[in-house]
Amino acid sequence: MAKDKKLVEQITSMEDDFAQWYTDVVLKADLIDYTSVKGCMVIKPAGYAIWELIQKQLDERFKATGVENVYLPMFIPESLLQKEKDHVEGFAPEVAWVTHGGLNELQERLCVRPTSETLFCDFYKNEIESYRDLPKVYNQWCSVVRWEKETRPFLRSREFLWQEGHTAHATAEEAEERTIQMLNLYADFCEEVLAIPVVRGRKTEKEKFAGAEATYTIEALMHDGKALQSGTSHNFGDGFAKAFGIQYTGKDNKLEYVHQTSWGMTTRLIGAIIMVHGDNSGLVLPPKVAPTQVMIVPIMQKKEGVLEKASELKETLSNYRVKVDDSDKSPGWKFSEQEMRGIPLRVEIGPRDIEANKALIVRRDTGEKLEVSLDEIDAKVGELLETIQKDMYNKALAHREANTHAATTWDEFTDIIENKQGFIKAMWCGETECEEAIKEETGASTRCMPFAQETLGNVCVHCGKTAKKMVYFGRAY
Amino acid sequence: MAKDKKLVEQITSMEDDFAQWYTDVVLKADLIDYTSVKGCMVIKPAGYAIWELIQKQLDERFKATGVENVYLPMFIPESLLQKEKDHVEGFAPEVAWVTHGGLNELQERLCVRPTSETLFCDFYKNEIESYRDLPKVYNQWCSVVRWEKETRPFLRSREFLWQEGHTAHATAEEAEERTIQMLNLYADFCEEVLAIPVVRGRKTEKEKFAGAEATYTIEALMHDGKALQSGTSHNFGDGFAKAFGIQYTGKDNKLEYVHQTSWGMTTRLIGAIIMVHGDNSGLVLPPKVAPTQVMIVPIMQKKEGVLEKASELKETLSNYRVKVDDSDKSPGWKFSEQEMRGIPLRVEIGPRDIEANKALIVRRDTGEKLEVSLDEIDAKVGELLETIQKDMYNKALAHREANTHAATTWDEFTDIIENKQGFIKAMWCGETECEEAIKEETGASTRCMPFAQETLGNVCVHCGKTAKKMVYFGRAY
Repeated sequence: MAKDKKLVEQITSMEDDFAQWYTDVVLKADLIDYTSVKGCMVIKPAGYAIWELIQKQLDERFKATGVENVYLPMFIPESLLQKEKDHVEGFAPEVAWVTHGGLNELQERLCVRPTSETLFCDFYKNEIESYRDLPKVYNQWCSVVRWEKETRPFLRSREFLWQEGHTAHATAEEAEERTIQMLNLYADFCEEVLAIPVVRGRKTEKEKFAGAEATYTIEALMHDGKALQSGTSHNFGDGFAKAFGIQYTGKDNKLEYVHQTSWGMTTRLIGAIIMVHGDNSGLVLPPKVAPTQVMIVPIMQKKEGVLEKASELKETLSNYRVKVDDSDKSPGWKFSEQEMRGIPLRVEIGPRDIEANKALIVRRDTGEKLEVSLDEIDAKVGELLETIQKDMYNKALAHREANTHAATTWDEFTDIIENKQGFIKAMWCGETECEEAIKEETGASTRCMPFAQETLGNVCVHCGKTAKKMVYFGRAY
Repeated sequence: MAKDKKLVEQITSMEDDFAQWYTDVVLKADLIDYTSVKGCMVIKPAGYAIWELIQKQLDERFKATGVENVYLPMFIPESLLQKEKDHVEGFAPEVAWVTHGGLNELQERLCVRPTSETLFCDFYKNEIESYRDLPKVYNQWCSVVRWEKETRPFLRSREFLWQEGHTAHATAEEAEERTIQMLNLYADFCEEVLAIPVVRGRKTEKEKFAGAEATYTIEALMHDGKALQSGTSHNFGDGFAKAFGIQYTGKDNKLEYVHQTSWGMTTRLIGAIIMVHGDNSGLVLPPKVAPTQVMIVPIMQKKEGVLEKASELKETLSNYRVKVDDSDKSPGWKFSEQEMRGIPLRVEIGPRDIEANKALIVRRDTGEKLEVSLDEIDAKVGELLETIQKDMYNKALAHREANTHAATTWDEFTDIIENKQGFIKAMWCGETECEEAIKEETGASTRCMPFAQETLGNVCVHCGKTAKKMVYFGRAY
């Protein structure tokens, strides 16, 4: 049996070294491989299939709100990137530059898009003339490049996959409404599909997107108590519109600037799934994004009738994403592999089960084992997948609640930082200087000013000045 | 009514200037927009939705044959690109080079992938150890860059979207089988989904892919008589495996090189749809890739009950991709727009129709008008969409057959070139020199050596030497 356990034995336990545990899971669950290009990864079939399920379900939710998909070029001329001052300052230091096309040097350098606000503005400038052309609610699925120094699979890589929505509206109100609508869509998606509870709120001035008037964010808590920004939605006001000259003629025949938004989620979500739900046996996938939801493992598969029954069972369960592992590996190896890959349910079926017209179902999230009659297995599997989806969310929520602490004094704040982990809720004066000081002293940054404000006191937890907002602080990925 | 016809009046007729007609349709049907980056386009919602339907249906066909999707980096280090000699010679002159990341010059230049054979080889080298790891049948959907001098929307652009499949097999036979399987999958897809008949065959040595042992192709005939290479499938033998050292241990414990294939289709298919099916009123979309299959146009929509009935009708037709045009434009304008955008069916419904419990259906492909009872309209629309799909294929096939000519002498060949258009079938000696001479003298290149060979004679149509193959010649995009 030693060999059967190899997959599991080779992973570091999360309590010993969370970062190493993460890397082990990413590799052993066959999600990615490293490449010759530093900071870029191969997303392997098991990883990409998760992304496809994320894409499909997110795209359906987008389209239900009127989003249309488009595709814009991957290159941005340097002069275009420079049109909005804050934006270029934020991104220029971390872009990749194309200087040669074929055998010739380019007259103007092109950067590989780190994000596409400038391209969408250049496009909208020509597309939008009248109020009749508004709103524009476009999105694209693509890859972007940011020349990061430190990289980690899914969490921070030089190239990553994402979607970026870019909209243009007649009024400031409509733009704000869309910004919030998309943030809530992201939050619901994380909670309902990924089983990850999130805090919805607004970023501080310091943490907002380069060029935005307001950035909204959803923040999730990982198993190790660190925060992960999981999706952002930005309201640009008319800043980009003024920089690019995007105007429309209103019903009253007056020329007005449009109001814009953008919003994005990335393959980073796969990192969130791993770090919220994973355990020391590997990945644990929420059923809604599990490429395989049920793995049937035949026991004593060489015995007559076992493989036949297993594939009959696969037919019975064809409402779900189901596979039979009929490889020549031992059952123990197959169990470890199914666990490592996070497949929500394992169904074991051997000669004695067949005789008794039953099978053994094992839940990945709890390890619970259930004997189920083959006559009822279809309904039972459906029920269990729903239960797992719900239980995984509740478990993650309980973990977050147990690791969210209120601090009303600076002593409390530093005590939590030193002796506990997780989110710290505290009152803040609203000053960037104070925010920077907190980060320098504790490593904790402002995650967001949550929509659900609470009054924990009247003064800033750090400087003692009048408090303006309750803020979630945390160490972050 | 003058204004109503604006959309149509502004397009050049295809008989006057086919190239201008093409550009007009691409822009007026709202498929693309030009950008600040020369040779790169914006694919607008109406264009991208076609690509999404292509992707979905092609991807389903891929997966049914065991293909798994992955994502590899967009950058290729120069040293990696150079590993296979023929391959680098073919691609190096037309790639874009990244030389700077952030503020620093890179130690090694990276090219933006023009195609990903070298990256897949670098990946497979680590992934493949034993015969148990084979076959690998991976595909990715992504964009690629080729620094073309002359560009045209969809047909030839510096960046385009595609899928590229890359496989590795234990034996030469299995690789050849997969190469042909994918070519046939492409051909069936074009014929069954895009309603475009294609000639299946093999490329000559001169025309094959850089680094391939054999390239297979599907060739379609456009309305103007020019050919369009619409999909290719390559067998690499073990050439790349030897250059990259991709070996596996066989069942007999011996070390062997893998045999590889690759195959791709691109957004060029949208260009093919336009040039095969389009007419002087604009785009004509086959129902299977029409983002909107039915446009309901209310007549006298301000009259009570008309808009209500139109949206009721939309519900009735919800099995199809259906929309109601309830904008404040005139019916004539809406008709032109529906025609320009190639929507297969228009349903007109006004007060008199409502009273008579009927509607008028107009076919985009033939202009045929049918009065249909509202009680039967659901079934009738389904039937018509199937008929249109079939009729469009048959019409395109008839056009190709009428424009495919056999030439047994050089006089016949040049006569066809000067006075006719389309494919020329002719016998060929198999020599590259002769092939090049034909191209220089007539502008016609070898499109393929079709699988369905015919014997038109014993000697080469050009040089008179012993003929080896029957070849399709043609001027091409």
